[in-house]
Amino acid sequence: MSDQPVDIAEKLSRVAEHWAPKVVARLNDYEIKVVKVQGEFVWHSHEDTDELFLVVDGELTIQLPDGDVRLRPGQLYVVPRGVEHCPVAEGEVHAVLMEPRGVVNTGDAADSSLTASYDDSLA
Amino acid sequence: MSDQPVDIAEKLSRVAEHWAPKVVARLNDYEIKVVKVQGEFVWHSHEDTDELFLVVDGELTIQLPDGDVRLRPGQLYVVPRGVEHCPVAEGEVHAVLMEPRGVVNTGDAADSSLTASYDDSLA
Repeated sequence: MSDQPVDIAEKLSRVAEHWAPKVVARLNDYEIKVVKVQGEFVWHSHEDTDELFLVVDGELTIQLPDGDVRLRPGQLYVVPRGVEHCPVAEGEVHAVLMEPRGVVNTGDAADSSLTASYDDSLA
Repeated sequence: MSDQPVDIAEKLSRVAEHWAPKVVARLNDYEIKVVKVQGEFVWHSHEDTDELFLVVDGELTIQLPDGDVRLRPGQLYVVPRGVEHCPVAEGEVHAVLMEPRGVVNTGDAADSSLTASYDDSLA
């Protein structure tokens, strides 16, 4: 076997913190990340890029200016560039993110205490 | 609710043919597609892009020049640009693909009978 698949659940089992995305794979200049979240994040936007959320476990609500989108396992949503959003999860949620390399999780709210440092130790 | 999530299983339930990817979402200039496959595809490569396979149901083997990669549900693999590959599945497999807009499924073997026309009717 020339290479190994990326097992999303196995990668998530190695994540302890909430709101700290870890790069697990790369696709050209895009990154696939896993993240565990619980509670409410911070309202922010990404001026230059869309952002994809795919829920693997739990239920995630993405608060948006015009209402909420609720994601269950196997459901994804793409937040359009420039649109303010604030994820919130009552219980713990396991999710996959996809976005261009180098996107900061808190976007234009990058001075937040929730701003995560870049981590590709699981890639 | 301002918008609806994309339910991957629901989208796949509307796919009948094999080897015919359907766009279900867009992320900047990238596309997220669902596909059902069974049997052996055709050896091909994509000169200009990596290609992400994420298995949702079934077991997919991606044959590569140096060996096979086997993907079970919840596992993904990125075939690097320019690398010849040939997916094969004994039983039916449900998968998600991610790649830049406009990629043809058969790549440099684009005169194959397996070449699919562009279909974003599920997006």
